[in-house]
Amino acid sequence: MTQAQVTQVSVSKDWIDLGIGQPQIENLPLELLEQAANHRFRQKDRRILQYGIEQGNGNFRFCLAGFLEARYGKPVDPDHLLITGGVSQALDMICGLKTRPGDSVIVEEPSYFLALRIFADYNLNVIGVPIDANGIIMEALEEKLKKHNPVFVYTIPVFHNPAGVTLSAERREKLIDLSETYEFFIVADEVYQLLNYTSKPPAPMAYYDGGERVLSLGSFSKILAPGLKLGWMQAKPKLLAPFTGCGYLDSGGGLNPFVSSIVSSVIELGLQEKYLKKLRKIYQDRMATLSSAIRKNIPALEFREPSGGYFIWARLPDGADSELLLADAQEHKVRYQPGIKFSCIQGLRDYLRLCFAYYEQTELIDGIERLARALE
Amino acid sequence: MTQAQVTQVSVSKDWIDLGIGQPQIENLPLELLEQAANHRFRQKDRRILQYGIEQGNGNFRFCLAGFLEARYGKPVDPDHLLITGGVSQALDMICGLKTRPGDSVIVEEPSYFLALRIFADYNLNVIGVPIDANGIIMEALEEKLKKHNPVFVYTIPVFHNPAGVTLSAERREKLIDLSETYEFFIVADEVYQLLNYTSKPPAPMAYYDGGERVLSLGSFSKILAPGLKLGWMQAKPKLLAPFTGCGYLDSGGGLNPFVSSIVSSVIELGLQEKYLKKLRKIYQDRMATLSSAIRKNIPALEFREPSGGYFIWARLPDGADSELLLADAQEHKVRYQPGIKFSCIQGLRDYLRLCFAYYEQTELIDGIERLARALE
Repeated sequence: MTQAQVTQVSVSKDWIDLGIGQPQIENLPLELLEQAANHRFRQKDRRILQYGIEQGNGNFRFCLAGFLEARYGKPVDPDHLLITGGVSQALDMICGLKTRPGDSVIVEEPSYFLALRIFADYNLNVIGVPIDANGIIMEALEEKLKKHNPVFVYTIPVFHNPAGVTLSAERREKLIDLSETYEFFIVADEVYQLLNYTSKPPAPMAYYDGGERVLSLGSFSKILAPGLKLGWMQAKPKLLAPFTGCGYLDSGGGLNPFVSSIVSSVIELGLQEKYLKKLRKIYQDRMATLSSAIRKNIPALEFREPSGGYFIWARLPDGADSELLLADAQEHKVRYQPGIKFSCIQGLRDYLRLCFAYYEQTELIDGIERLARALE
Repeated sequence: MTQAQVTQVSVSKDWIDLGIGQPQIENLPLELLEQAANHRFRQKDRRILQYGIEQGNGNFRFCLAGFLEARYGKPVDPDHLLITGGVSQALDMICGLKTRPGDSVIVEEPSYFLALRIFADYNLNVIGVPIDANGIIMEALEEKLKKHNPVFVYTIPVFHNPAGVTLSAERREKLIDLSETYEFFIVADEVYQLLNYTSKPPAPMAYYDGGERVLSLGSFSKILAPGLKLGWMQAKPKLLAPFTGCGYLDSGGGLNPFVSSIVSSVIELGLQEKYLKKLRKIYQDRMATLSSAIRKNIPALEFREPSGGYFIWARLPDGADSELLLADAQEHKVRYQPGIKFSCIQGLRDYLRLCFAYYEQTELIDGIERLARALE
């Protein structure tokens, strides 16, 4: 048999693809999951193999709530958690149950490019609103709200993908106000919430929700392992009800009961906390290394050093087009994500996204040196 | 903490709920999965934790194809398999990507009641076509096709839920012909394909597809464990392409890479074959027991003994209403699924569905004796 493809992306050994927004394979916690699986199997509870309760295993939600409480420094009610198959699955479910073709949704400009693909699959009318160092610019959002009637605003309010920025507390409150006035709901993609390196971000958007407007989406993909396909939605029970009660979950049962039960053990054994701490240290160092490599080798590249997440969002000088320059980069066996991918209006051509999670520090430096040569 | 709900259904100890269409918890193969997980972890392949390739891990698809080939006695091309999160997830994805609100779909009358719920979530116009001992009545189907323009026909062509019947080979060919003439595609829910007890069913619908019309849906829920949330779609690559290429899988990666890798070991170690053999023996005995208990205790109940699957679909005499009679049954602490649940036109009131998978033989007899007293 020829080598079968296992992972979503694979890179030739002599290439450096700074466009990949995934964890490094060598860092994935296989031994940790083995320990957790053994712990779980030893409990001889066959119910972890049965159709699970739609909202997600009650014990797991209790356990997850405890973990999140410790991290957030705020109470987490297990009944405000719905277990998902990760943020992509949650977005897919939200679109399937809450939208109709032609409905409008508002996203940040830039936004996570693969969320845009999901919205396109559901034939949604996607409207972009600019952001700055503090996230969505509220005046610009309100202008759009006066003209459109979006079902929801999709925001990445913390360590934004690609821009790295975090929505300030004041703007979070303003966003909630606007959601009440203009009657939309807020889908907050908070996959990087727990990956803070230099300062602690505001609490998840769900904590700003005085009414019933916010779905906060979390995931184990970036803090444990993407292959588990496990995440959660935090929201008021009334907001969770249409998902918990949908036909898909009624038919199939809750999402990933078996995996949930193993991740329960990951948390119970204190392994999640320990691994997260390790990850944050690794990423903090890589972020610092990538930042200084850029400053040293490509000083013309403008960027803000993020305080968490996976990405540096950098701007080319003189309105250069990052998509066109990709050909030059590839001649030097280096890649990045061109800004246009993150735009819903084919803009942001002078931006590029660099990920510091997938590579070791030496490779990050090598990658930036290649990029410097390519951009010469 | 009070006892948290873990599984989708729970029954009080002194009740017998013959309406539950799930495997028996005591039969779920925990030790088998422990063995498979240990085997997988020992291989030290961290890629099982990474974002997986959209179509599903190539090694797993190869392994699954080998298992299915041996069971079907027919070649299975790994490139014709897309790994899903089970049949419910596949149905959800098909509705999300292939339909728009108001589109028509044709189902069997009766059909799987929770598939009807998924179709309702997508605001589809559901049209029922009657079945007999050999599955869909083709003349009745063609009548509907002349009037409507369905996106797809949803069929449970093998050991039908609830009716227990199997679509004959001739009718399968006719269904394919009709799909070409009237340009619809066929969604075949074949979750019970491998649970044959007294005779081998025709090959999955995908093998009848001369063109590009059939999506055959398989699952590990009934042959291994529902909590794994793992299944597959077998179809021509052109038909799989919109799913493999959708935004959800592009963003989240393939479905359940970690679980897939464990189930690879279940198959490689020969455990799936062995467990399936065991299950078939258990269910065959239970089916025989349930059948003879009905004949002995409620001779007025008409039914055909199925040759596989989970269910007996029985008809009450004198046009009695099974939904109304449920109250009487419940007085005797026994339940079943009333026929109306499986109807898209609020019909089939004189039918009821009894499952023989969830209970031991003694409990099945007890349940039927209670039902006999209730119906006296």
